[in-house]
Amino acid sequence: MAMDAAAEADHLAAERAAARFDVEEMKVAWAGSRHAVDVADRMARLVASDPVFRKDNRTMISRKDLFKDTLRKAAHAWKRIVELRLTEEEAGLLRQYVDQPGYVDLHWGMFVPAIKGQGTEEQQKKWLPLAYKFQIIGCYAQTELGHGSNVQGLETTATFDPKTDEFVIHSPTLTSSKWWPGGLGKASTHAVVYARLITEGKDYGIHGFIVQLRSLEDHSPLPGVTLGDIGGKFGSGAYNSMDNGVLRFHHVRIPRDQMLMRLSQVTREGKYVHSDVPKQLLYGTMVFVRQSIVADASKALSRAVCIAVRYSAVRKQFGSQDGGPETQVLNYRTQQSRLFPLLASAYAFRFVGDWLKWLYTDVTQKLEAKDYSTLQEAHACTAGLKAVTTSATADAIEECRKLCGGHGYLNSSGLPELFAVYVPACTYEGDNVVLLLQVARILMKTVSQLTSGKQPVGTMAYMGKVQYLMQCKCAVNTAEDWLNPAAIQEAFEARALRMAVNCAQNIGQATSQEEGSIYISQYHILLFH
Amino acid sequence: MAMDAAAEADHLAAERAAARFDVEEMKVAWAGSRHAVDVADRMARLVASDPVFRKDNRTMISRKDLFKDTLRKAAHAWKRIVELRLTEEEAGLLRQYVDQPGYVDLHWGMFVPAIKGQGTEEQQKKWLPLAYKFQIIGCYAQTELGHGSNVQGLETTATFDPKTDEFVIHSPTLTSSKWWPGGLGKASTHAVVYARLITEGKDYGIHGFIVQLRSLEDHSPLPGVTLGDIGGKFGSGAYNSMDNGVLRFHHVRIPRDQMLMRLSQVTREGKYVHSDVPKQLLYGTMVFVRQSIVADASKALSRAVCIAVRYSAVRKQFGSQDGGPETQVLNYRTQQSRLFPLLASAYAFRFVGDWLKWLYTDVTQKLEAKDYSTLQEAHACTAGLKAVTTSATADAIEECRKLCGGHGYLNSSGLPELFAVYVPACTYEGDNVVLLLQVARILMKTVSQLTSGKQPVGTMAYMGKVQYLMQCKCAVNTAEDWLNPAAIQEAFEARALRMAVNCAQNIGQATSQEEGSIYISQYHILLFH
Repeated sequence: MAMDAAAEADHLAAERAAARFDVEEMKVAWAGSRHAVDVADRMARLVASDPVFRKDNRTMISRKDLFKDTLRKAAHAWKRIVELRLTEEEAGLLRQYVDQPGYVDLHWGMFVPAIKGQGTEEQQKKWLPLAYKFQIIGCYAQTELGHGSNVQGLETTATFDPKTDEFVIHSPTLTSSKWWPGGLGKASTHAVVYARLITEGKDYGIHGFIVQLRSLEDHSPLPGVTLGDIGGKFGSGAYNSMDNGVLRFHHVRIPRDQMLMRLSQVTREGKYVHSDVPKQLLYGTMVFVRQSIVADASKALSRAVCIAVRYSAVRKQFGSQDGGPETQVLNYRTQQSRLFPLLASAYAFRFVGDWLKWLYTDVTQKLEAKDYSTLQEAHACTAGLKAVTTSATADAIEECRKLCGGHGYLNSSGLPELFAVYVPACTYEGDNVVLLLQVARILMKTVSQLTSGKQPVGTMAYMGKVQYLMQCKCAVNTAEDWLNPAAIQEAFEARALRMAVNCAQNIGQATSQEEGSIYISQYHILLFH
Repeated sequence: MAMDAAAEADHLAAERAAARFDVEEMKVAWAGSRHAVDVADRMARLVASDPVFRKDNRTMISRKDLFKDTLRKAAHAWKRIVELRLTEEEAGLLRQYVDQPGYVDLHWGMFVPAIKGQGTEEQQKKWLPLAYKFQIIGCYAQTELGHGSNVQGLETTATFDPKTDEFVIHSPTLTSSKWWPGGLGKASTHAVVYARLITEGKDYGIHGFIVQLRSLEDHSPLPGVTLGDIGGKFGSGAYNSMDNGVLRFHHVRIPRDQMLMRLSQVTREGKYVHSDVPKQLLYGTMVFVRQSIVADASKALSRAVCIAVRYSAVRKQFGSQDGGPETQVLNYRTQQSRLFPLLASAYAFRFVGDWLKWLYTDVTQKLEAKDYSTLQEAHACTAGLKAVTTSATADAIEECRKLCGGHGYLNSSGLPELFAVYVPACTYEGDNVVLLLQVARILMKTVSQLTSGKQPVGTMAYMGKVQYLMQCKCAVNTAEDWLNPAAIQEAFEARALRMAVNCAQNIGQATSQEEGSIYISQYHILLFH
């Protein structure tokens, strides 16, 4: 199709020139440092200029071709990382800009950290070098067809056989099939498999085991291992580049030393023993994963908002007088009232993500000093922020799509794929509804302890001002008064505390547990807003 | 993969047996009559039993193969309709159950109705038989790259040339390219093209013209016609089966008698004249289209809710005591508080759809009698219901997807595709935000006329009780009182009227038009809730 010269013009130049802040300074503030801006720019250019990393055809090709394309990109990225001797920071950013879900994400993001966090030093020495050199490819096989959030309900068994010094991994039911693990369907040779540890006839609950799934010779499944891809997912490309898989075991034997034994062991005789490593150390990993999810929310949201803002600046519609130009959609109040809060949220999530990084350091230091006093508050905080930021971001991407009118429905706008690839964040690493119910329960517990004089800590410290906050009046009289951050903070504190106390009172007055659960459900919904 | 016998069991039998209403009676109430149930069942079985209509591979194949599959299904459906001598009702249902967007939808749903509604009797005699026998395939080319909702801003021109008795159809700018018409990209031979009619040097605004696009010999584009497909859209399958297209004209000539001349004509000499057919008759078509969109909302929502309810009944999670079975997800308050309102909405939309059918009959009769007194109210009513039901349905499908946890993200759940194929309903036939602003303005106008004694009609009649509703108190004291529909209706009336009056007062006090537009924006957002 012939293109007019007008299509080449920079329709955003006027908007850009009108910025009333220093754009370069803002870039540094957003990235965190001048160094971070430079590395990101360099890696972004590296990806954008390499034809192997092209993205324009991702939504056009069949699922099979898309998967092949992912394998090619992963191999090429690895080659470039080695050739250019990229640092870990650079390599991470390069993979981020390749921006196509694949088995590599699970290998680096779940398999390696699981061995690091739950493996003994000996196990780490054996397995990590293999993983670092990609001599094995690993995935993380936890979720089953029948159980996700309820980890304690997993049905796969690992039964110790003292005769041969082996664990027998088995899938006793259809619902015990591992279901969803990324990288499992086609790519992985190994998995960390979560299963009920049974020894001496007793069920010790869920533990992790390193299990080889496929031959290192010809990649065929090992005897007793049945696996495959679980099929298409939301979107044209999105997570269809990932080989999420299904896996069943039929009495598969592994050596005893492939149980991850940092926290507990099974002895040669089959005795189950705890190590002296405190279980709470695992919380550190969870805080780390969730802070990166919050950081990712800000990235996804800022991409969506960027597209919608640019579209709104270029698109002109209605309002032409005497044949003059029409009004930029960006200048309509209805567009602004929907778009600007999302733009503000992208910045808010960016900076709360930084704060969560600090929280992770703080929690880690405290755990190492065996100080568990802030653990519950840190858990509530990361669970709540994970749920609120991912739900808000998923909804916001869809809102940005609608803000681009019909054009937002085309894959070429980038928004349908951004939505489809983002929404699982509301489910993985803790379903948002389950997480918010946990937050609600912790808040209710905190409220119930206020009268006993127990001082809430960290982000809940404000609840200690209960007497004042329950009866204070808003000091805001003029619009300008809202520019005082202390006034906004007090308004939020008063509102949050009054809602919490109100819910606690309703629960206290409930005549049945069922009625009580209604109040906590209603309160959990309020937490979203 | 081996399947356990348990997978074959009917996990819903217990739930079905527990129904406390007559399921057969409910089916009849839902469908509208015993006859409607029978026809629907018959057509559903016809589609389900025919291998050409298989649906299981739709999300796996490449876009090209998906489009070929659509052509095959459309041709086969036509063949079956002719072979079985299906009635119009039966044929419509058969196409509905084939459930794959394609050019046929536009041919029957937009091209034929446009000729029927805007063509003279002579034009109908010439074109309709060709369309009925599929000797030509038609689409509806209105939306352009630069203008959608703002129909008056369309740029394509149709300039009358009295020398040759022809119109010259031309696309003067890049933004004047027709963009989105379904069936245009690959299938259509003809289009009803909307363009600015220019004659005797004067621009008479937007009119419809029948334009041939492709050769009836070899399907190649005619000289001066540039067209193609606009690329991938949201979802794996969804609207990717449709050849939404782009179209540009370079001085394409058509005979004068291909202007649709029922409402206005251009004479041989180039004079623009109105016919004596009142313009308001076109409103009838709009009411008809919107009532069918509301009916479709109920269908889409009921499918999503059906999947989520069944999943919630089968899925068991947490709450196992002493090794007993876990709790059905359906029995959790959090699940119920999210799911049940959506289930109720599916029924509400079903029955309001029926009422809109009555409204269409009523409007048609009044228009024929040249009674335009209820036209504005009918417009507000259909515009508002179109916006509210489609937005609520789109959000509800996504909520149902989330209610199915991780499983909702798989295409095999049906929900991702249902969402992707449904969301355009929020944009086409009137963008929901634009429509709600129209409703808000009509309500504001109605409020402002209340003091002058002008009685509001139809669904706005309750506003006449302004004195009572502004100060009445809710008579509900016990939970049982809410079972009285009159109490609920009065609560809705009081709330709606107070919100409208409050908004009108804010606008009245606004010191600038800009400030006034803030209030109407806020009010339009309230209308969603």
